[in-house]
Amino acid sequence: MKTIKTTLLLLLVTTFAINSNSYCKEHNKKENKAHWGYSGEHGPDNWGKMKPEYKLCENGISQSPIDFNSPISASLIKINFNYKPTNLNIINNGHTIQVNYTNGSFAVIDGKKYSLLQFHFHTPSEHTVSGEHYDMELHLVHKNKEGKLAVVGVFIKIGKANKYFDNIITHIPKHKSEAKQYDEMINVNSLLPKNKSYFHYFGSLTTPPCTEGVNWSVLTTPIEISKEQYQKFHSIIGNNNRPVQPINNRFVLISK
Amino acid sequence: MKTIKTTLLLLLVTTFAINSNSYCKEHNKKENKAHWGYSGEHGPDNWGKMKPEYKLCENGISQSPIDFNSPISASLIKINFNYKPTNLNIINNGHTIQVNYTNGSFAVIDGKKYSLLQFHFHTPSEHTVSGEHYDMELHLVHKNKEGKLAVVGVFIKIGKANKYFDNIITHIPKHKSEAKQYDEMINVNSLLPKNKSYFHYFGSLTTPPCTEGVNWSVLTTPIEISKEQYQKFHSIIGNNNRPVQPINNRFVLISK
Repeated sequence: MKTIKTTLLLLLVTTFAINSNSYCKEHNKKENKAHWGYSGEHGPDNWGKMKPEYKLCENGISQSPIDFNSPISASLIKINFNYKPTNLNIINNGHTIQVNYTNGSFAVIDGKKYSLLQFHFHTPSEHTVSGEHYDMELHLVHKNKEGKLAVVGVFIKIGKANKYFDNIITHIPKHKSEAKQYDEMINVNSLLPKNKSYFHYFGSLTTPPCTEGVNWSVLTTPIEISKEQYQKFHSIIGNNNRPVQPINNRFVLISK
Repeated sequence: MKTIKTTLLLLLVTTFAINSNSYCKEHNKKENKAHWGYSGEHGPDNWGKMKPEYKLCENGISQSPIDFNSPISASLIKINFNYKPTNLNIINNGHTIQVNYTNGSFAVIDGKKYSLLQFHFHTPSEHTVSGEHYDMELHLVHKNKEGKLAVVGVFIKIGKANKYFDNIITHIPKHKSEAKQYDEMINVNSLLPKNKSYFHYFGSLTTPPCTEGVNWSVLTTPIEISKEQYQKFHSIIGNNNRPVQPINNRFVLISK
């Protein structure tokens, strides 16, 4: 009788072990699948298939980035930038280098106040102008009281060294990390070009879940960084641009 | 035995009659349900619930008509109207008075050629300007080679009599009818105002199935008809305007 009981117990434990092992394999597979990236099976073409929450990446009709091609010249309200210095709070999240901003900095876009949450970088630029990429693109992510997002884009091209970039470059975490706070101060205002003309349209986040309804303003004038500054950036993150998406039924405006 | 047979037959016939009667009732109910209109249970608030094909009327996010409120002044290409005279082919379809156009008339909108299919009327206007309706609105419906729709809207206000309207008014079928063709010629060009400035945005059909992706151009300058002309129209169709829809993430442009 004891032998039978032991055999049954052994059978039960073994069955559980096999099942839980196969569960873990399945679970890990799913976990890996959710790790979106910029190439191969985790690349932009497959984002929409990875999770139901990412379906807009595939089915959305107002997606970003886009190509700025024959924009309509329009009387747009100047963007009012109100950015203040903040302690450098920098993170390498595996997809980009991001600097988180403390409360109090904001921009007034289309007459509405949007608080600055963070800025981050893409290499090469995500938006293109008449089909051409810039070397990089800076994205300043804002949110208003109603939870609506507004992103200001700044093109970056290789040229003169930019002293305001050194502070960031020196502190980029080389590996995927938690956010690190430094004593150094940074003001993203120093990274904006003098000319604040901009392309304007409604689009989406350029990373999963590709949420739509994002108010986009991409400055037409690029800023410059040196080749060395660019290479330090690129060596850590590599290429992290989503390809341009169809414009569909959207107007792209350009301010005068 | 004969009695039993007869009774069975009678029972069978009766059962069929009851079933087919209830089938017809159900069928008629469904048919009625599909008859969308402008008030009560068949009104605009319920269009989206009537048929799966009408779901955009409820769930769409780029619907028409809209209110033109603080449009963005933009350098838009002038619409090039190429309308030719056609035999008057008029229909009262129960929702509007419609004049079908023969091939050969077209408009060039945003640099693309759209053939004129038909024009029809709404009372009062469907689009509003700063919340105010005009007395009527004329819609010129066009389609391009790719099957994309472009509608030109013309506001109509009560004022001076308009001789170009008499031709239409005289021939309006008083009851729901097939299209009727007359020898009289009509050129809808005569119904356009001199000033061709326009509001411009992407929206939808204003009737079920509320298809989106419609290129809208609504002229800012109204034309006039007399009170008598207006009343003849209104007495036949009554009010047939869909209420204005949320703008959501769309720009409304105005040409300069």
